[in-house]
Amino acid sequence: MAMQRTPLLMSRLVDRGATLAPDAEIVTATADGTRRQTLATTRDRAHGLAHALAAAGIRPGDRVGTFMWNGSRHLEAYHATAGMGAVLHTLNIRLSAADLEYIIGHAEDRLIIADADTLALLGTLAGRIPCVERVVVAVEPGFEDWSTDVADAIDYEDFIADQPRRYAWPELDETAPLGLCYTSGTTGNPKGVEYEHRSQYLHTMAQCMTDSMGLSATDTLLGIVPMFHAMGWGLPWSALMLGCKQVMPHRFMNPERLVALMASERVTVSAGVPTIWQGVKAFVEANPDAYDLSALSRVTCGGSAPPPSLIRWFNEALGVEMIQGWGMTETSPLATLSRRHMKHKHVGLSLDEQFDNVAKAGLLMPGLELDIFDEDFNRLPHDGETVGEILVRGPWICSEYYRNPQPDRFHDGWLLTGDVGKIDPEEYLVIADRSKDLVKSGGEWISSVDLENHIVALDGVAQACVVAQPHPKWDERPVALVVLDADAAVDAAGILAHCATQFAKWQLPDDILFVDSIPLTSTGKMDKKIVRGELDAEGYVLPDLRLVGQEGAT
Amino acid sequence: MAMQRTPLLMSRLVDRGATLAPDAEIVTATADGTRRQTLATTRDRAHGLAHALAAAGIRPGDRVGTFMWNGSRHLEAYHATAGMGAVLHTLNIRLSAADLEYIIGHAEDRLIIADADTLALLGTLAGRIPCVERVVVAVEPGFEDWSTDVADAIDYEDFIADQPRRYAWPELDETAPLGLCYTSGTTGNPKGVEYEHRSQYLHTMAQCMTDSMGLSATDTLLGIVPMFHAMGWGLPWSALMLGCKQVMPHRFMNPERLVALMASERVTVSAGVPTIWQGVKAFVEANPDAYDLSALSRVTCGGSAPPPSLIRWFNEALGVEMIQGWGMTETSPLATLSRRHMKHKHVGLSLDEQFDNVAKAGLLMPGLELDIFDEDFNRLPHDGETVGEILVRGPWICSEYYRNPQPDRFHDGWLLTGDVGKIDPEEYLVIADRSKDLVKSGGEWISSVDLENHIVALDGVAQACVVAQPHPKWDERPVALVVLDADAAVDAAGILAHCATQFAKWQLPDDILFVDSIPLTSTGKMDKKIVRGELDAEGYVLPDLRLVGQEGAT
Repeated sequence: MAMQRTPLLMSRLVDRGATLAPDAEIVTATADGTRRQTLATTRDRAHGLAHALAAAGIRPGDRVGTFMWNGSRHLEAYHATAGMGAVLHTLNIRLSAADLEYIIGHAEDRLIIADADTLALLGTLAGRIPCVERVVVAVEPGFEDWSTDVADAIDYEDFIADQPRRYAWPELDETAPLGLCYTSGTTGNPKGVEYEHRSQYLHTMAQCMTDSMGLSATDTLLGIVPMFHAMGWGLPWSALMLGCKQVMPHRFMNPERLVALMASERVTVSAGVPTIWQGVKAFVEANPDAYDLSALSRVTCGGSAPPPSLIRWFNEALGVEMIQGWGMTETSPLATLSRRHMKHKHVGLSLDEQFDNVAKAGLLMPGLELDIFDEDFNRLPHDGETVGEILVRGPWICSEYYRNPQPDRFHDGWLLTGDVGKIDPEEYLVIADRSKDLVKSGGEWISSVDLENHIVALDGVAQACVVAQPHPKWDERPVALVVLDADAAVDAAGILAHCATQFAKWQLPDDILFVDSIPLTSTGKMDKKIVRGELDAEGYVLPDLRLVGQEGAT
Repeated sequence: MAMQRTPLLMSRLVDRGATLAPDAEIVTATADGTRRQTLATTRDRAHGLAHALAAAGIRPGDRVGTFMWNGSRHLEAYHATAGMGAVLHTLNIRLSAADLEYIIGHAEDRLIIADADTLALLGTLAGRIPCVERVVVAVEPGFEDWSTDVADAIDYEDFIADQPRRYAWPELDETAPLGLCYTSGTTGNPKGVEYEHRSQYLHTMAQCMTDSMGLSATDTLLGIVPMFHAMGWGLPWSALMLGCKQVMPHRFMNPERLVALMASERVTVSAGVPTIWQGVKAFVEANPDAYDLSALSRVTCGGSAPPPSLIRWFNEALGVEMIQGWGMTETSPLATLSRRHMKHKHVGLSLDEQFDNVAKAGLLMPGLELDIFDEDFNRLPHDGETVGEILVRGPWICSEYYRNPQPDRFHDGWLLTGDVGKIDPEEYLVIADRSKDLVKSGGEWISSVDLENHIVALDGVAQACVVAQPHPKWDERPVALVVLDADAAVDAAGILAHCATQFAKWQLPDDILFVDSIPLTSTGKMDKKIVRGELDAEGYVLPDLRLVGQEGAT
């Protein structure tokens, strides 16, 4: 033995920020303002919560559910469970009752910490989640009169009130479980991804690299991505380790509130999905001088790819660098990242070239391996044209699902991501689509993402969603659902003409459907499963099939 | 198993830069200019070197010595041995023949890669290092006519010429040995520190954090700290992983050459010991407009503490941030770091306050534990005043010496660093001294480092070195050796008056000795062992003891 055998436990990282920066603030949005506490208080309360959980019978390895927005008590739950060795099972509060019932039962959550305003939702599960012995209720102003019959319930403050403020974090094996997050697939039950201390420890270090999100202790972080989703992209861990000031939006997710929080708290870095940033853009465009966003320097966009026009707008209108990240619940989640300068040779790039790079999913994080493969698992060339399924492996990549291994999602140590993409000669990953969202037309693939990004760049278009519709001759054909701005002077012909400047004729949508909104998934992505289902339910038929039908009738 | 069990091997990191940035340059200084090759070429040659080493019988775990300056072939040796699982034993070319003989024999180096210009030095070991089967000679322009009788020798280029350019790096245990570096203590034989894949992997990730040295792929790095010292502070690994442009000074270590290299290669970040930076300062002050250093943004200073006046000069004269690092061979080496802004609350600090912080050894790197202890291993308060021995532990801290465990240097899983210091209420570590360099006077400790930093801040003083001299009444008393600038108008009384503004009377040096230079150790620190030895050899007596002698004689 030459070097110390220190296990890579999150308990070694989560207390660090509070030690170095005890006065840094944790700010939580409330109905009429903010709640504030220091990082030292957060640490002390987290140690108290760990004692309370232990007193309630929670042992290392036991699952503790959270049914919470982003807020200081959710952060304390992260901190406490990581320290004591319990498993934080973040429940997505936007899931259906059936999915929640399945997930809670499958994980055997023994205790759930819930925000009081979510109790109505949780209440629909009364009598259906017998494994849950106790509910600890985190009460924000206005919800003091909560009640629930889901399980024996106690106010969070009463739960931790008399507990000691120092917990001697136990030594665990570094591969001990840390967290659990379920991902909802297109078919079958949701599948659980179990995070380990070692995997999140390494992910945290990678996330804090300069060429990653460039996180620093001097940052003020607004994590908009829900902490119930893929460990909040790792941001709670990184910020606890560094000692950042953190701002948490809780349930107040509308664009104006987010923009106001960024301004009043002098937020320097934020993270969310494209729909969040599109909302911010729309709000700022409509209210250009309402708030001072001069402190903001970077926003990370993940979950799905931001349109290039959005990346450019953030730079031009706000002087803010948009960073694109790609990953998924199974990848902890960061796998690739794209910033304006990622290589030594990039220093002299033009702005246009920088934006082109950020529009790609990015370069692989250190320590991971990634490649594109054909259906027989042959590696494909990195020519920027060949499209294949993306496989990834490394120390923070899932190796099987929780109590449901799903060996067909893995191959020879690699995770099959379900995304298809290409890799260009500069080693940038470009996501073509989720494999289920690609449009297969006449034996060729059409990327719905490429069409959407192009359409949404047109003035007057707010959102675009391209889905496949069945076609007897071509197999599938693309249809675009488009949301217009209020005062837009755009019609279907104009959109098609705009697409024709970039795409081949056979790649153009067969139809443009103007809609008021696009349904979103529980994680804020466009829900194409719902879109396809709705088109199906209303008996939608492609235009040329309607003609065929008429011709056949004559 | 929930996450993939990917071992943390350096082979997963060293090829990354060449994949992402194949065109980034590795620039090596030569007698009359530079040699240049791309990172892709460096990788290909490193894979070829690994094949050549394997063909020469080197197996995973075997020690390969290097006796080299910083240059592209030394980097290839790092890359090749890390990939194939051999152990890179970096030999300090400034050590005595006796130490080298001991080290090479103790490590059982089977092969040594040596720069041709060092062969004369290595030649003094002929017949004394029988374990060495082969010497591979790296030839820079002007040294084509090399010869050696140390062992069977071959030109590096011939050695790798016909080898394949892809080596399938083996899967090893992550705690497999990676490198070996001996540290010369004050007593006994040098002691070997064995680095492991896992420890350097984690060190590399930590070094690339924003709040660490802020290294980025976009940087051009000039590592002045020798690659034979503590894995070159980890910089070769980080730069290979990121894909930085690297500039290597080889044997051309004089200040003008270094400054010229920084200017012509547009170096953005550099790293070296205080004497290097003092030399750069002296050169730039004497030649203020000779070179354009506008690209330079940060220099890291380690090995010993930079005087605050030097930190301030780099900012004021060059607009360069000096980053202080503290560590040692046994800590891989980074343990603490100090930058101008290290906490959220630092954003509003005045420049003076920023410089005060950088003058401290810094804040602990994530993942490590550090504290100060009394002689009975009780933890001491973090009050900024109490001084104790610094103990450190964590995943890149040595747990025993190579084939020479030295259990008295470890306690309960902690490394005893041999440095003494204090920790202030902001958790900054402040090094008081090496425990052997503290001056013990009348039961109180006087920090030689504090006195030196204060003296060197005086106009006209180029260097100051404070050592203890024996005293029958006080035990020890401090004496200052001072090197003056050419045109300095400073005398001993002036220096003592300057010290009296800051230090108590009993802390003032008993004597000021003006000298032409201070001897340096093989790693560029002031060699107080030599200074004390020379004073002893010349029969130096403290002034008041001379008086006592005269009084006794009367």
